[in-house]
Amino acid sequence: MDLKQYIAIVEDFPKEGISFKDITPLMDNGSAFKYAVDQIVEFAKDVGAEIIVGPEARGFIVGCPVAYALGIGFAPVRKPGKLPREVVSVEYDLEYGTNTLTMHKDAISPGQKALIIDDLLATGGTVDATIKLVEKLGGEVVGCAFIIELTELKGREKIRNYPVKTLIQY
Amino acid sequence: MDLKQYIAIVEDFPKEGISFKDITPLMDNGSAFKYAVDQIVEFAKDVGAEIIVGPEARGFIVGCPVAYALGIGFAPVRKPGKLPREVVSVEYDLEYGTNTLTMHKDAISPGQKALIIDDLLATGGTVDATIKLVEKLGGEVVGCAFIIELTELKGREKIRNYPVKTLIQY
Repeated sequence: MDLKQYIAIVEDFPKEGISFKDITPLMDNGSAFKYAVDQIVEFAKDVGAEIIVGPEARGFIVGCPVAYALGIGFAPVRKPGKLPREVVSVEYDLEYGTNTLTMHKDAISPGQKALIIDDLLATGGTVDATIKLVEKLGGEVVGCAFIIELTELKGREKIRNYPVKTLIQY
Repeated sequence: MDLKQYIAIVEDFPKEGISFKDITPLMDNGSAFKYAVDQIVEFAKDVGAEIIVGPEARGFIVGCPVAYALGIGFAPVRKPGKLPREVVSVEYDLEYGTNTLTMHKDAISPGQKALIIDDLLATGGTVDATIKLVEKLGGEVVGCAFIIELTELKGREKIRNYPVKTLIQY
């Protein structure tokens, strides 16, 4: 199935000069959504994932069905103030300023094999911070999977020590 | 399965006097997560859902696996500025001030049977606004499903014209 036909390209969103890749048409189509999730489920089996970790909000869209299909848990990565219990945090640099991501301290067991899933791999800042969170909790990152990869932004170099799966490349 | 054992009660979150019901321990447990999703999948079949609609971010966590399990699409409901293409909006009242939710204009086809899914039914403000969005797009709301219902807040009265399924009541 050619998944690219289900991605909407929106120019100058969220700001001028950005060519935004919108996955909502893919999610809106039951066959395309199932096909995309199933590709990542196969990768998750190959790397032996025991828990899925996904950053809000679009990481939930892809990661939660993968966890469900495998009968394993899902651990959310959220912005500060969203998770109600004790968290670990990682701060990372953006083009201008910094961003912080958090996970609950009990989200991952020591040694648990975690697969990180998000909709898009761009510069890799979010996934790199997520890897740090999982490793702070004693988890083992066994791979990273994305629907879309923006190859020019070279996010893959930032996670070159981990198996990476992407379904659509621009 | 007694799902209540997987809900963490966090007092005074996000503000004093609120007893927050945290579903992350349920999501973290593969068997409990699968069991909860499967209950809602059965309800979705009973009401003939053709598309799942869920508000960010916790509505994605429950709604996306249900859509995947049924091989149907998922339409996200998001805060203003998050969806990149043309949207419809609904504003609704909060205790102090107002909130606005949006959906892409092409997210629902006219006559399509939509099941709305979120993690929690409290006063019903979010689900009521979501129903209005679906109906603005010409969709038919065939039901509303939630992991948790806070019965004292009487959200069910606000959606009494629709079939409602909740898995855990407080």
